[in-house]
Amino acid sequence: MTFSYDGTNFNGYQKQPNKRTIQKEIEDVLKQINNGKDVSVYSSGRTDAGVHALNQKAHFDLDVNIKLYGLKKTLNKKLNGEIYIKDVSIVDNKFHARYFVKKKIYSYYINTSEFDPIRKNYCYQYCDKLNISKMKKASKYLVGEHDFRSFCKEEKDKENCVRRIYNISINNVNGIVKITLVGNGFLRKMVRNIVGELIEVGNGKKDIKYIKELIDSKGEIHNKKSVPACGLYLDDVMY
Amino acid sequence: MTFSYDGTNFNGYQKQPNKRTIQKEIEDVLKQINNGKDVSVYSSGRTDAGVHALNQKAHFDLDVNIKLYGLKKTLNKKLNGEIYIKDVSIVDNKFHARYFVKKKIYSYYINTSEFDPIRKNYCYQYCDKLNISKMKKASKYLVGEHDFRSFCKEEKDKENCVRRIYNISINNVNGIVKITLVGNGFLRKMVRNIVGELIEVGNGKKDIKYIKELIDSKGEIHNKKSVPACGLYLDDVMY
Repeated sequence: MTFSYDGTNFNGYQKQPNKRTIQKEIEDVLKQINNGKDVSVYSSGRTDAGVHALNQKAHFDLDVNIKLYGLKKTLNKKLNGEIYIKDVSIVDNKFHARYFVKKKIYSYYINTSEFDPIRKNYCYQYCDKLNISKMKKASKYLVGEHDFRSFCKEEKDKENCVRRIYNISINNVNGIVKITLVGNGFLRKMVRNIVGELIEVGNGKKDIKYIKELIDSKGEIHNKKSVPACGLYLDDVMY
Repeated sequence: MTFSYDGTNFNGYQKQPNKRTIQKEIEDVLKQINNGKDVSVYSSGRTDAGVHALNQKAHFDLDVNIKLYGLKKTLNKKLNGEIYIKDVSIVDNKFHARYFVKKKIYSYYINTSEFDPIRKNYCYQYCDKLNISKMKKASKYLVGEHDFRSFCKEEKDKENCVRRIYNISINNVNGIVKITLVGNGFLRKMVRNIVGELIEVGNGKKDIKYIKELIDSKGEIHNKKSVPACGLYLDDVMY
């Protein structure tokens, strides 16, 4: 299934005891549909608290026979509008929503204009100028296959931090800077750390080559710059 | 002062006992700045629960001497981000933020595409097609000076329901229909009722002339169609 959600009032995607999460909300509803039998939902990956999704994907098994249209309709009726099921379809039994991911697309939104209360939970209220041209140049160093452990403080000692970024685009539309990253996978907080470092280039605190130094240091230069979760959107997942 | 707010978690602009309102929130903060002495805030007008504002205006008197820059800064520091003070300036003693209004601009946003959880509180999730060209034609009847009591059920028996609409523009950008109304003043719920009736034309349930019949009936045809508060924005106020 493909679904979107407003992450504002959730403690992230993944189930945790006594916390409101997206996974729990969907599994509870699916259990009702599945005649009271538990259903496990396997998504393409977790998203952190406050992060939004436009096209998250997940698979699950049901024991009941239900038409796809009816399933979508019932799910959306029982969910309260913070999560919306966009599409359900039948997949091969071997399919796995996490293991079969080929590409993921994330976008991050930065408000460089005046503080906007209406978008407070939907983009980073940076409210200062950024040099987009410098950020674009710096972002070129990130494209390709690299060891990204410098952008993943929590998992610095993890065995495999090699990921491939296919593309990064940066645009400023009416003061909202949108950074879109396409990759074969992302480490925990990697997108937010990359955006945080690109902002350091955009505001002139670091020069363009700093991004290359960060990559080359393989975690020796400790990344300290992150950005708020509310600006991050899981745009799409490809199989 | 000019200020913006996200109306989602407020019971409207106007102060009410034991309810969270925008006026109360601002007056509480101003009282602190005013050395504990009460401050009354007079806005250009109220907005209903759930309605947002981009450039609401209000005036007030302070007993303390404070620089404008410091006043703005302190206000925004003490407010929690759901209300944002964009500008403060000194006005003539005779100025009144409500009585001196010359024009008001309201916009209403309708999502005609798929349900969007991320914009759930920020536009009307209509999620069906609308014929914009028909709505534009119908809106022409509303421009000019009219008795708008048909669009104001609550105040149908009010003495003066004559208002002037200077302009109505309707645009569809990527499935979001934006209706902007410029007028010398609006009755309670008038914008939402107008939008509700224009939707009836846009979805084909009524024909274009129905809007003229509604106006001409001067409240005899009872308006029953309104639209949710969350799609409405007070865009600007002119003096």
